[in-house]
Amino acid sequence: MTPIVVSMGDPAGIGPEIIAKAWAARVEHDLPPFVVIGDLRAFAAVWQGPIVEATTLGHVPATFGDALPVMAVDAGGTVVPGRPDMEGARSALEALETATVLARSGAARALVTAPVGKAQLYQVGFTPPGQTEFVADRCGVSRDDAVMMLAGPSLRVVPITTHVPLAEVPRLLTVDLIVAKARVTARELRDSFGIAHPRLAFAGINPHAGEGGALGREEIDVIEPAIEQLRAEGIETTGPVAADTMFHPRARERYDAAMCAYHDQALVPLKTLHFDEGVNVTLGLPIVRTSPDHGTAFGIAGQDQAHPGAMIAAIRMADTLACNRQQRAAARP
Amino acid sequence: MTPIVVSMGDPAGIGPEIIAKAWAARVEHDLPPFVVIGDLRAFAAVWQGPIVEATTLGHVPATFGDALPVMAVDAGGTVVPGRPDMEGARSALEALETATVLARSGAARALVTAPVGKAQLYQVGFTPPGQTEFVADRCGVSRDDAVMMLAGPSLRVVPITTHVPLAEVPRLLTVDLIVAKARVTARELRDSFGIAHPRLAFAGINPHAGEGGALGREEIDVIEPAIEQLRAEGIETTGPVAADTMFHPRARERYDAAMCAYHDQALVPLKTLHFDEGVNVTLGLPIVRTSPDHGTAFGIAGQDQAHPGAMIAAIRMADTLACNRQQRAAARP
Repeated sequence: MTPIVVSMGDPAGIGPEIIAKAWAARVEHDLPPFVVIGDLRAFAAVWQGPIVEATTLGHVPATFGDALPVMAVDAGGTVVPGRPDMEGARSALEALETATVLARSGAARALVTAPVGKAQLYQVGFTPPGQTEFVADRCGVSRDDAVMMLAGPSLRVVPITTHVPLAEVPRLLTVDLIVAKARVTARELRDSFGIAHPRLAFAGINPHAGEGGALGREEIDVIEPAIEQLRAEGIETTGPVAADTMFHPRARERYDAAMCAYHDQALVPLKTLHFDEGVNVTLGLPIVRTSPDHGTAFGIAGQDQAHPGAMIAAIRMADTLACNRQQRAAARP
Repeated sequence: MTPIVVSMGDPAGIGPEIIAKAWAARVEHDLPPFVVIGDLRAFAAVWQGPIVEATTLGHVPATFGDALPVMAVDAGGTVVPGRPDMEGARSALEALETATVLARSGAARALVTAPVGKAQLYQVGFTPPGQTEFVADRCGVSRDDAVMMLAGPSLRVVPITTHVPLAEVPRLLTVDLIVAKARVTARELRDSFGIAHPRLAFAGINPHAGEGGALGREEIDVIEPAIEQLRAEGIETTGPVAADTMFHPRARERYDAAMCAYHDQALVPLKTLHFDEGVNVTLGLPIVRTSPDHGTAFGIAGQDQAHPGAMIAAIRMADTLACNRQQRAAARP
C-alpha cells in the first residue's frame, strides 16, 4: 500500500512533536504507514525516538514499524521550537510543496498537513490565504470549489463563508455559493465518506432562522431558494433550521453534515464538542487532504505539552477517505 | 418560607405538562414549594395527579407535599392541548400578569414563567417582544438593563444583542451596550449567583476574534475599549477571545459567564451542551425571574412527551438565586 504523506508544518511549531507522537501511537491507533516531509533537525529538537531518512516512498511501509520515516527538506539556519523565523517558513513551504506533489502524483495516497505560521509564510512570498487554497491551486481546482469541512467523531460542519468579517457574511451568502458548496459536500460524503444517501442540514443565519422573516430575510431570500434547487437535483436537505437547535445529540443524528452560514456558526459547535480531535478536510480536490484543526501553538512548542489527538484523527481520516475513494472507483463499471 | 410562583404559559402548550411533571418530581429534585398561576382545566387535560386550588399563598408550603397548588385564572372557552387560541392567550397573559404582581410584591420569592405563544399573545394586544420585556416593564426597569442570561450546568452565556437580524449586529454592538450588559451581569453573578469575584470572558464577533484586524475591526474598535472600561471599574474580564476556542471543557473553567456578541454565538454552545436543561435568567430586575429555555412545543402538547428537565432546572435555579440574594441582603451592614 502506498503511504500517506504528512507535511511538517512550521518547524518551530508543534507540528514535529504531534507527528512524532502520532507515530509513537501508531499501533494503539492502528495508523497506516505515513512519511513526513520535513526538517530532520526539527524532529531531533523535540523527540528522542527513532527516525529513518526516507529517500523513496516505496520503502516506507516496510520500515514504518521501526522508525519515523522523514523525507528531508532543509532551508538552512537552526530550528528553535517556539521561535519561528523566515528560514523555518521556507522549509515549511518546501515541505508543503513536496508533499502536495507526491499526493498529486499518486505516489502518496493522501496528504495530511501540519499547521503553518501564516504570518511567517506571507513574509517569504506565500500568497494564498492558507494551505487549503495553496493545495487547491496546485490541484487546478478553483478556490470556490474547494470546500472546508471540519469533522469530529459526532459532527461534520461546513462553513459556507469562511475567513471573512462577520459584517460581510450577509452579502457574501448567495444562492450560487450555497449550491456550489453543497454539491461538493454531498458528492464527497458519498464518494469519500461512503454515505450512500447523504443528508445536509442548513442552518439559518438569523436567530430562530429568521422567524418567518421577522428577524431577517436571508432564510427566505437566499437559503430556501438554494435548498429548493438542491432538492431538485436530488440532494437530501433539511432547513433552514434554527442554528441553536441543530447541535444537541438527538439533532445531530438527523444529518450527515451541517451547512453553516459563517465560520463561528460551524466552528463553535464543532470545537465545543471535539476540541482535541477536530479534523479539517478539504472537499472537492482530486486528492484526499486533511489536517488537524488547530494552529502552530508556538507558545507551547518544544515543551512536550502538545496533544497529538487531532493529528492522529487527521491521519486516520485521510486513510479512511482514501480507502473509500479507492473502493468507489473500483466499483465503477 | 414564601413560595415560588410559576406562570402556566400558553395552556395549549407543554407548560401545564412540564409544571405538573416537575411537581411530581419534587422530592427527587428537592424542589421548594411553588404555586402555579393558571387554568385548572389546562392541568386536568394533561395530568391525572392531585391538584389543590390555592386561594392564598400562605397555605402553599403546607399543602405542597400533597397536591399541585394552582391559583386559578380562567379566560373562558375550552383548552385543547396543541390547539392554541386567543382565549388561551388571554389566560396565559393573565397568569403572567398575576404571577409578576405576586413576585413584585414579595408574596412570592421568585417568578418562573412557562413558555407562551408569542403570535397568539400579539393577537390579544400584548406589545412587548417577549415575557422578559413584559416583566422588566412591570418592574420599572428599562429593557436595556434587563439582561438575558442562559445557564446550564457547565456554562452561562449572555448574548449582548438578542433577537435582531445578524446583519444588524455589527451596528448594534456598541461600547455602551457592552459595558451596560456586563455591569449587570457581573453584579448579578456576585449578588444572585454567589460568586465573590466574577470573571467575564468576551467573545470576538469575527472569525479568530478578527485576527488583529485582518478579519474585521469590531474587536479593536468596540470590544477592547469596552473591556478596558470594565477593567477600570474593577470587573475581571478576558478577551476578545476567538469564539470557537471558548466553549470546550477546559476553556469553560476560565470564566463565570461568556459575553457573546449575538444570539447564536451564545445559544449554539449553550444548547449544544445543555439542550434539555437550559434556563433563561433575566438579570437586572428587582425580582428573580427564570424560565425554561424552550418554547410552547404545541406539536407535542398533550401527548405526554414533554421533558420537564428545563422547568425543573428553572425552578431550582430560581430557588438558589432567591436564597443567595436574601443571604447577601442579610449580610449587608
